[in-house]
Amino acid sequence: MEARNASAVVVGAGDFIGGEIAKKFAAEGYKVFAGRRNGEKLQPLADEAAARGHSIVGRSVDARKEEDIAAFFAEAEAAAPVEVCIFNVGANVQFPFAETTERVFRKVWEMACYSGFLTGREAARLMLPRCKGSIFFTGATASLRGGAGFAAFSSAKFGLRAVAQSAARELGPHNIHVAHLIIDAAVDTAWGRERIRERQGEEALKNTPPEKFMRPAAVAEAYWRLHEQPADAWTFEHEIRPFGEPW
Amino acid sequence: MEARNASAVVVGAGDFIGGEIAKKFAAEGYKVFAGRRNGEKLQPLADEAAARGHSIVGRSVDARKEEDIAAFFAEAEAAAPVEVCIFNVGANVQFPFAETTERVFRKVWEMACYSGFLTGREAARLMLPRCKGSIFFTGATASLRGGAGFAAFSSAKFGLRAVAQSAARELGPHNIHVAHLIIDAAVDTAWGRERIRERQGEEALKNTPPEKFMRPAAVAEAYWRLHEQPADAWTFEHEIRPFGEPW
Amino acid sequence: MEARNASAVVVGAGDFIGGEIAKKFAAEGYKVFAGRRNGEKLQPLADEAAARGHSIVGRSVDARKEEDIAAFFAEAEAAAPVEVCIFNVGANVQFPFAETTERVFRKVWEMACYSGFLTGREAARLMLPRCKGSIFFTGATASLRGGAGFAAFSSAKFGLRAVAQSAARELGPHNIHVAHLIIDAAVDTAWGRERIRERQGEEALKNTPPEKFMRPAAVAEAYWRLHEQPADAWTFEHEIRPFGEPW
Amino acid sequence: MEARNASAVVVGAGDFIGGEIAKKFAAEGYKVFAGRRNGEKLQPLADEAAARGHSIVGRSVDARKEEDIAAFFAEAEAAAPVEVCIFNVGANVQFPFAETTERVFRKVWEMACYSGFLTGREAARLMLPRCKGSIFFTGATASLRGGAGFAAFSSAKFGLRAVAQSAARELGPHNIHVAHLIIDAAVDTAWGRERIRERQGEEALKNTPPEKFMRPAAVAEAYWRLHEQPADAWTFEHEIRPFGEPW
Repeated sequence: MEARNASAVVVGAGDFIGGEIAKKFAAEGYKVFAGRRNGEKLQPLADEAAARGHSIVGRSVDARKEEDIAAFFAEAEAAAPVEVCIFNVGANVQFPFAETTERVFRKVWEMACYSGFLTGREAARLMLPRCKGSIFFTGATASLRGGAGFAAFSSAKFGLRAVAQSAARELGPHNIHVAHLIIDAAVDTAWGRERIRERQGEEALKNTPPEKFMRPAAVAEAYWRLHEQPADAWTFEHEIRPFGEPW
Repeated sequence: MEARNASAVVVGAGDFIGGEIAKKFAAEGYKVFAGRRNGEKLQPLADEAAARGHSIVGRSVDARKEEDIAAFFAEAEAAAPVEVCIFNVGANVQFPFAETTERVFRKVWEMACYSGFLTGREAARLMLPRCKGSIFFTGATASLRGGAGFAAFSSAKFGLRAVAQSAARELGPHNIHVAHLIIDAAVDTAWGRERIRERQGEEALKNTPPEKFMRPAAVAEAYWRLHEQPADAWTFEHEIRPFGEPW
Repeated sequence: MEARNASAVVVGAGDFIGGEIAKKFAAEGYKVFAGRRNGEKLQPLADEAAARGHSIVGRSVDARKEEDIAAFFAEAEAAAPVEVCIFNVGANVQFPFAETTERVFRKVWEMACYSGFLTGREAARLMLPRCKGSIFFTGATASLRGGAGFAAFSSAKFGLRAVAQSAARELGPHNIHVAHLIIDAAVDTAWGRERIRERQGEEALKNTPPEKFMRPAAVAEAYWRLHEQPADAWTFEHEIRPFGEPW
Repeated sequence: MEARNASAVVVGAGDFIGGEIAKKFAAEGYKVFAGRRNGEKLQPLADEAAARGHSIVGRSVDARKEEDIAAFFAEAEAAAPVEVCIFNVGANVQFPFAETTERVFRKVWEMACYSGFLTGREAARLMLPRCKGSIFFTGATASLRGGAGFAAFSSAKFGLRAVAQSAARELGPHNIHVAHLIIDAAVDTAWGRERIRERQGEEALKNTPPEKFMRPAAVAEAYWRLHEQPADAWTFEHEIRPFGEPW
């Protein structure tokens, strides 16, 4: 493991993808600061990392609150310069258009888009003076397609993609790599399986062949490879899907 | 003029595009309900329409408030079934990414995206039982492209486009035509000219040839033609630009 | 009917869409020159037009041959300045990738892309000195999506779209309106019904609800309306689909 | 270096990108078969590889000829199962639309699109029975945008992208990874520099900052990483650009 004086901030370090991202960057020598609601749930992850000589600090962060985000980044920066920032908060909901409440619409946006803006901006503020860093956002099929029943979710994901694009165009020439990772698949998690069951039924879940699921570790690996790209060959939009996924 | 027992709701009936849309649909026989902040500014438009035997009712509406939107639609529906709904609120701002405040980001979204959701949803609630109607949203270049300096604006416009897409896919089969009009140009208004001066300087404005401006009336006409499309040849995304506009 | 001293050239004036386009522009006062393989099949169309005082001249044209296209345009231009050009040749085939012969791949391209280039270029040559005219190309779902089994067809349609885009960007500032009409649906023709039967079976055809078919006349009307657009609000890409079509 | 019983076929192994791709895959243990016009020019590359214990066989191939392509693949397959196929033929030309000859249009298509189809199909025929392999195509900005003056080039590149998409959708479920690499930049080669000089002048070339060029080796590295992607996280469209490139 390369010794580094650099930290990586993961906002939305949930049980699946976010946790794997934290582990990957910790394994690569970064001081990882992992934030989520109920940060105490991150203790096992932090302990596991420590046992391997890696560093993951778990924190409770409400990413919709500017002061929370600022404090979280300040803590990371105090430990080591923030070199990586990954925003990974999701909020997948489905409602008929006419029954989507203003509360749902607003909350989904706050979680999946507004928080991403706050996170990306905070990272940019730290990285701009150094002209160095990676800021990555997790997208989904709904980032590109407003499907029936997904007005709230896709609106937030479209909005997050715009934030990422705008930031990429502005920060790229300052040597800050902004990318938007589109996961065009169900990720193989308890939650992902539950979504399929809910929307398509028990049968559909049973019949989903293994080649249609993506391992959370594959997502973490994809992020790592984006971060490693040389500055003369950066990707902005990076889509990944399992080989058996129709598109 | 065809006599109609139908109303058209225009949310965002400003001095330029929105006003022309109101006039066009009034001239085609609709009872037009035009909403904007400072609704009293709509009085001349209403008077002018009345002088021609057309009907435009101007109202003060804060489109970010659910109760305002609901009351506005209820008034229109009481006059005649709402058959057309056009959302035309803009909020074009430009800031460096790191200097975009959370207040700006949130406000631009509330004006340009959230209000559009509330407006479209209210229209859908009235139209769904009748399986009839048109719901149109005004987009811009920033609906498809997150340019440097436009994180807030393009995020809101991307988000509005997702609302429109999702609604179109869900409501289309119920014979409700949802469309998203992309105006890929400066509209020829005092405001549009001011934007060019601000961003590119006085010289750029002077040198802008007339063939790069779009008349507000051309936008109104485009909306009318979308509304007239037969149900077997509907357009969802409708882009328009002047012949001299590079793209 | 407005009296005009202008001709409209329709390349690919088959039994369905192309024929309707010819009728529409003839009804609007254009001297229509309709070309297809087996031009003698156009006689009934020409007779029908003549009976109404409209003008349609049918010709046998192999659109893959430069000299054929040039002669066809020259004849039209001799009658009246060519003001409208519509390219409407299709070549929808489906084969597994590994079984697509080079002969099929080449022929589909010659019919659906190369012919379109020749047609558009010939029109441009006549229109450029006058700074006036419309050049329209018929696209399909396959213009935007390379589906499994459609390597040959979608490759040709993608290629045609590029020709249209490139021409639009170059000719627009010369006041020549180039547009690409995407018909995202089955058109209601014997041929279209046959394709559904072939690909999805007899049952699928029986179960196709009428709201998923587009009338050829609706396509012709869409072209007419594109042609009528004012120069400050031109559309390049115009997609149409029936209200019941999923997308 | 891992010992492999596998070959990699590179069609379009020119002086710059293609040569680097050949070197990279040879360095990773593949028996590389590199084809280009004037295959004798590949001798230095083959010698250099041999000196390092790597294997590159250079051949003269006219990729527009089915029999050439078939023979080239047959030779590679005889040496070791073809596991990788990369199509890298370019044909960038620029002409005013009305002055683009049919000869240019056809030739550019034959080189940049038709050859790609032949190459991809031949690879698919070998890989399908084994359910294993990577087929990659080199794209450019013109694959997504038909710019003024680029009707021939962008038409061919659009067409190649459709071939790639269609093949990806069909072959993916057979565990064959098809990808389309979009190089959205000038590659740092004598040729690339010449293009800039030609199109924008000597000054533009002098003023091009180094951060706007992409090293050929970065492209080769990008291909290698695509090939290494795990099957549950494949990318179809992979865009890369230098950090200083506006987009």
